[in-house]
Amino acid sequence: MHVLILGAAGMVGRKFAESLAAAPLGDGALRLSLVDVVEPVAPAGFDGVAETLAVDLSAPGEAERVLAGRPDLVVHLAAVVSGEAEADLEKGYRVNLDGTRALFDAIRLRHDRDGWTPRVIFASSNAVVGGDFPDVIPEDYILTPQTSYGTQKVMGELLLADYSRKGFFGGIGLRLPTICVRPGKPNRAASGFFSGIIREPLVGQEAVLPVPDDTRHWMTSPRSAVGFLRHAATLELSRLGTRPNLSMPALSVTVAEQIAALEVVAGNRATALIRREPDPAIARIVAGWARAFDASRALSLGFTAETSFEQIIRAHIEDELGGRVG
Amino acid sequence: MHVLILGAAGMVGRKFAESLAAAPLGDGALRLSLVDVVEPVAPAGFDGVAETLAVDLSAPGEAERVLAGRPDLVVHLAAVVSGEAEADLEKGYRVNLDGTRALFDAIRLRHDRDGWTPRVIFASSNAVVGGDFPDVIPEDYILTPQTSYGTQKVMGELLLADYSRKGFFGGIGLRLPTICVRPGKPNRAASGFFSGIIREPLVGQEAVLPVPDDTRHWMTSPRSAVGFLRHAATLELSRLGTRPNLSMPALSVTVAEQIAALEVVAGNRATALIRREPDPAIARIVAGWARAFDASRALSLGFTAETSFEQIIRAHIEDELGGRVG
Repeated sequence: MHVLILGAAGMVGRKFAESLAAAPLGDGALRLSLVDVVEPVAPAGFDGVAETLAVDLSAPGEAERVLAGRPDLVVHLAAVVSGEAEADLEKGYRVNLDGTRALFDAIRLRHDRDGWTPRVIFASSNAVVGGDFPDVIPEDYILTPQTSYGTQKVMGELLLADYSRKGFFGGIGLRLPTICVRPGKPNRAASGFFSGIIREPLVGQEAVLPVPDDTRHWMTSPRSAVGFLRHAATLELSRLGTRPNLSMPALSVTVAEQIAALEVVAGNRATALIRREPDPAIARIVAGWARAFDASRALSLGFTAETSFEQIIRAHIEDELGGRVG
Repeated sequence: MHVLILGAAGMVGRKFAESLAAAPLGDGALRLSLVDVVEPVAPAGFDGVAETLAVDLSAPGEAERVLAGRPDLVVHLAAVVSGEAEADLEKGYRVNLDGTRALFDAIRLRHDRDGWTPRVIFASSNAVVGGDFPDVIPEDYILTPQTSYGTQKVMGELLLADYSRKGFFGGIGLRLPTICVRPGKPNRAASGFFSGIIREPLVGQEAVLPVPDDTRHWMTSPRSAVGFLRHAATLELSRLGTRPNLSMPALSVTVAEQIAALEVVAGNRATALIRREPDPAIARIVAGWARAFDASRALSLGFTAETSFEQIIRAHIEDELGGRVG
């Protein structure tokens, strides 16, 4: 199977490529095409064919170039993130809408020429909802995003659905939950603390909690996110019916429940490192985010995620800390 | 008030311009800028300033050109219709998505330069829904269109909402029902018979009915459609909250109810001119269309529509037949 990953330098893209290298999907030798705005790194130890490319998808001709090898599977994770798309409107639309459209159109034109019909997995987001919504967002709920990023993701979903309906490719869109515990350094994303209050204490460092303990959010592990992509790569697409975009399963937890799970796994010594430092600006942003989705369609199609926050912490310890809390 | 109408050569655009000429809105002298792909005609007898332009909005620089007069109100009705957008994918996306985006971006850039913040009314459509939906489509129901036209209309709604949220203009999107009785000649649109079975018998001509009598659809008169635009032109926009796109009120009627109303208004002589000629292809298309929407948001904001099909027929007789059935 030849897999093209756009956004392969990002955390999920990198882990998905590593997962494929460790356990290939489908028939034949695994071939990887790894693309991002900065050149991605091939998985360590992978001895198959891997090409790595630095590409701006929205630039003329670039989508055609990355598709030249006619991959069996196109995984489109590339995006300008929420904060940047909000601050730089033109860049957000150029990358997140025009880039996605350039990719889908290049596939369409090639399909029209030679019948090539790859599978396309599109990473959408829980940011597609916004404004007023209930505690648990139903499968049928209208998407009225309140950020430019969310707007661009819904537009991507719509384009994916229309082009799939027309038969240009076999599309499936995954509304990814917030990924937690995100590995790496703390960053300034408004959602960063959901990972920080677990990741830092597990390695003996202090972490700041800017929101009240009863703040509820919708999260899953990097391991589950990779699992979603793997499942979407082989799922029988006719089972999606007229709606190829799916809310992924995840865990709806409060910060208090996160901390309680951390205490079970790593004790008081860890939780004592969480410093409460209320930040009304962050609390206001987070209050606008979805707290839970009904993901019964995805669950019935075989997508799975953690069902307790302890599982999420243990996945992090196994995948990032060599199984040890220290 | 300076009003720019894009799509002014279409039926609704023309009637809206005529309505403004007869009864202007807002302050100061009415000025009309009428734009379409073919040059529109100014309302007969209008003695104010009216400019008419033939423009392809999606061509470079054209959106800036039509906005040069800094209108107070921009009414965007221009679109490639459903059947054509389905048959010619590139044209549909170019006109319905790129044209809309070029217009909104030209307003945004001018807003950024000099603070100009017009009101923008965007004509959306009941084609934004598709696939599985209940008999009455709730206000909160997900939009999963099953045509390229519907896809492009949802994208327009999303862009309108995002740009309005950012304050580039004051946007309001109206999901227009099927317009019935549509004046003029019979056409080959799949929905044409809903008007044809009323319009033709009222002037003593035969009309073909290709679907079963129990077929239910969502309709309103051209007069109500013009009323929606007039109301949207002056409504206090802050009342829209985070959702500037509204399902317009209309009437959910069956073909049998249409025919019964025609009999009340014009007698057996008229209904005898309806010839039943089942067409499974048309019946299949129509079966995929929405039968009714919950329009309580629009109703609570003061939008109104007919509440019986007799009213719709009488509006047609008054507005198109000089009040006489012949």
